[in-house]
Amino acid sequence: MSIFEKARELALIQSSAAALEWDQETYLPSAAAGHRAAQLSWLSSRAHEMATSDDWRRDLEAAENADSGSDTKLTANLRELRREFGRSNKLPVELVARESVACSMSKHAWSAAREKSDFASFAPHLETLLEIAREKAELWGYQNEPYDALLDGYERRTSTAAVVKLFEVMKLELREIAAKAVEISASRRTSLPAGPYPIEAQKRFNAQVAAAIGFDFEAGRIDTTAHPFCTTLGPRDVRLTTRYMEADFTSSLFGVLHEAGHGLYEQGLPAEDFGLPSGSAVSLGIHESQSRLWENHVGRSREFWVHWYPAAQECFPQMGSFSLDHFLAYLWRAEFSPIRVEADEATYDMHILLRFDLERRMLNGSLTVKDVPTAWNDGFRELFGFAPTDDRHGCLQDIHWAMGGLGYFSTYTLGNINSAQLFAAARKDVTIAAAIDSANYQPLLGWLRKNVHSHGGTIDPSDLIKQATESLPSPEAYLAHLKSRYL
Amino acid sequence: MSIFEKARELALIQSSAAALEWDQETYLPSAAAGHRAAQLSWLSSRAHEMATSDDWRRDLEAAENADSGSDTKLTANLRELRREFGRSNKLPVELVARESVACSMSKHAWSAAREKSDFASFAPHLETLLEIAREKAELWGYQNEPYDALLDGYERRTSTAAVVKLFEVMKLELREIAAKAVEISASRRTSLPAGPYPIEAQKRFNAQVAAAIGFDFEAGRIDTTAHPFCTTLGPRDVRLTTRYMEADFTSSLFGVLHEAGHGLYEQGLPAEDFGLPSGSAVSLGIHESQSRLWENHVGRSREFWVHWYPAAQECFPQMGSFSLDHFLAYLWRAEFSPIRVEADEATYDMHILLRFDLERRMLNGSLTVKDVPTAWNDGFRELFGFAPTDDRHGCLQDIHWAMGGLGYFSTYTLGNINSAQLFAAARKDVTIAAAIDSANYQPLLGWLRKNVHSHGGTIDPSDLIKQATESLPSPEAYLAHLKSRYL
Repeated sequence: MSIFEKARELALIQSSAAALEWDQETYLPSAAAGHRAAQLSWLSSRAHEMATSDDWRRDLEAAENADSGSDTKLTANLRELRREFGRSNKLPVELVARESVACSMSKHAWSAAREKSDFASFAPHLETLLEIAREKAELWGYQNEPYDALLDGYERRTSTAAVVKLFEVMKLELREIAAKAVEISASRRTSLPAGPYPIEAQKRFNAQVAAAIGFDFEAGRIDTTAHPFCTTLGPRDVRLTTRYMEADFTSSLFGVLHEAGHGLYEQGLPAEDFGLPSGSAVSLGIHESQSRLWENHVGRSREFWVHWYPAAQECFPQMGSFSLDHFLAYLWRAEFSPIRVEADEATYDMHILLRFDLERRMLNGSLTVKDVPTAWNDGFRELFGFAPTDDRHGCLQDIHWAMGGLGYFSTYTLGNINSAQLFAAARKDVTIAAAIDSANYQPLLGWLRKNVHSHGGTIDPSDLIKQATESLPSPEAYLAHLKSRYL
Repeated sequence: MSIFEKARELALIQSSAAALEWDQETYLPSAAAGHRAAQLSWLSSRAHEMATSDDWRRDLEAAENADSGSDTKLTANLRELRREFGRSNKLPVELVARESVACSMSKHAWSAAREKSDFASFAPHLETLLEIAREKAELWGYQNEPYDALLDGYERRTSTAAVVKLFEVMKLELREIAAKAVEISASRRTSLPAGPYPIEAQKRFNAQVAAAIGFDFEAGRIDTTAHPFCTTLGPRDVRLTTRYMEADFTSSLFGVLHEAGHGLYEQGLPAEDFGLPSGSAVSLGIHESQSRLWENHVGRSREFWVHWYPAAQECFPQMGSFSLDHFLAYLWRAEFSPIRVEADEATYDMHILLRFDLERRMLNGSLTVKDVPTAWNDGFRELFGFAPTDDRHGCLQDIHWAMGGLGYFSTYTLGNINSAQLFAAARKDVTIAAAIDSANYQPLLGWLRKNVHSHGGTIDPSDLIKQATESLPSPEAYLAHLKSRYL
């Protein structure tokens, strides 16, 4: 078997696991959790065995030696397969197993600690996970600081220094925008007409919107979960989920728009390359740019609702006498919340900047775990002007660290930056802009297919942005977007 | 790894495949079929490799040599693992692959042939599959005729001669019962009040009934498919499906009762032995006895509806002025249909007797494929008094042969026979009988757990019936049941 056949076989295993995980989140009976974990563990062991085998290394080498360089896609695929092999192979099995146990214990401890707002009981777990993260960073290697090595796993060949620079530029302006947006929002009517908004009606409306932006229901579907997500079970099998609140139809709708943005990216990857880097998403920051583009730039725009508002009013009769302007004020409401997942577009990134700063300092040793709560509250106060009431609403709120997900948060804001830059570039084409204004999203989707989706993982994230927008990732378009919408 | 650990690992693979197959039937987007087939093929190759490996053989032998015979369950498990290993291992990989291709081509051909009622275009495929079935029978070996070897795969250690004997005894009486039942039914009102019976209301009612007979929704669920089925994805994960007709709530309900009967068996198998013979169903004929027992003996009885009819009337207001007697006449309607899957309880087995006879003759060479349509029509006329209008309503109606499922049909009638014999034996216990009459199904389920479910595959089907009912499988109880209900 060639290395490409092997990579495709590996994708069969991994996508089977994805299917079992999807079922676990959507339909699994409660008593079946233990067996499902055993099935997933079996599949992941097979995948790991395969992707770190001597056989794999030999076939990869053989293909590298045979590569004449004349086929750029093939060369890119080999480069990325080598990179992934390097990362997997540098971690000893002992470390992987130790991390898996530590994460599992840590998640339980975190859950209990959050409940009681008791950081001290979570601290030793965070210490352990930090130590493991540092060990991994040393094994993978890095240029300047451990965060580089972790970030590279989510946002390849992106340096911490580059992210620091982006975030530094944004920080002051973001704080100003957020404060003003909150002030403006407080002066406006920002509640929806009373529910219930029947869930079946929400489902119909969401499906109509998802289809209109181009989500292919022959190659995907929408189900219900506590936390919305998007997962890919095969080259033509993209599953979205959302959650429903009877009091507010926009909650499930923006869940769908966000996840459908991820889904459109997955559906736009070259299906024939499924399992190869050229058939896979390039990074979390690019993935998030797609979800944010459809959720915020398309879905929260006035242009969008000029078209869709009558349909929403037909679907939800209580909206009948609620004006479009009131509705937009509701969509554009801005409030300071201590909780990231409840934050709106105008205030979201400040949550990320805080986490990024703390993570970096924890990893390079300049912030000790015991000082995290104080550092969190100080950092939060600096950005928001007040501190959370307790650690439950502060440094204990997110599961990411408890799952060993260090280096991940920054990609949310990278995604926001990328989304604005891509959307602005696409709208420079007057045909695309005009089509969007008349609720025809095909030209925009076509542009994204051509400039983002079709490349898969053959181009690095920042090069992809450069190539699509004629400049490297920069926060200007994003800040301009926030200002124009919120100020 | 011991042979038992190996068998449990094999069950992880097979149950992962079962999960992917369940998703394929319930939620898979249409464009995803190809990738799903590739995932399933990968899993089934791993399972086959494992179950036919030298390693497997060695560990099985080691366990057999170490078995002192003092633990009867262990000995039974080894005996059945040996039996399964023998059956898998006797088939060369080439034959398995050839069969898989032939089945896949044959299914397509059958589907097209049925559409056009064109037996000639399906005949060569049936020839090929028959030849493969005969080859397999020769490789497995048999005492009297090839059908023995095939039947053994579904109903272990049950001889064709024994089935012939059972069926011969029944044939004349069945024909008489069916004819009279059809006559009686024609003289009675046998239609439901007009629908729609809303699907959501059907779902609620079905779930209530399934829970009442003991189906555990923490270890299972009900979804919707074109053809109802029951599948097991893990020791505490049993999935039922049914289909809904807005015009008739009993269609989905009896689908659920039937599949929940299968599901109760699966939920009653020893969970700690999942993947071992002692944790697996023993045969199709015993499995079908459980579905038929709950569907027909419990669910179609007057006692059942005396309790459940008011609940149904509350759920479906149009039933309000429809009398229980009219409803029972509807449930007990009997009609001659050329189509097996539309047949009612009173006429169903004649469809099976016909297929069993033709299959046997095809396998032993006394019926050639080209003569099948004539033989079908003659046999059908002998039983039903008329012949189907065309092959689409005759020998082309079922998918079983096109899937290589020869030797399978007889287990439907074995299931009916067993269901009646088990139900009669259970009801001899006056506590059980009284409880059933007051809609308490726990004592009956307890009896089935003890006498059927908990044995898993440690006892052969006919011994299991003997042990539970004090006599070997015999059609008396079944014929008595049909007569008492239909005449």
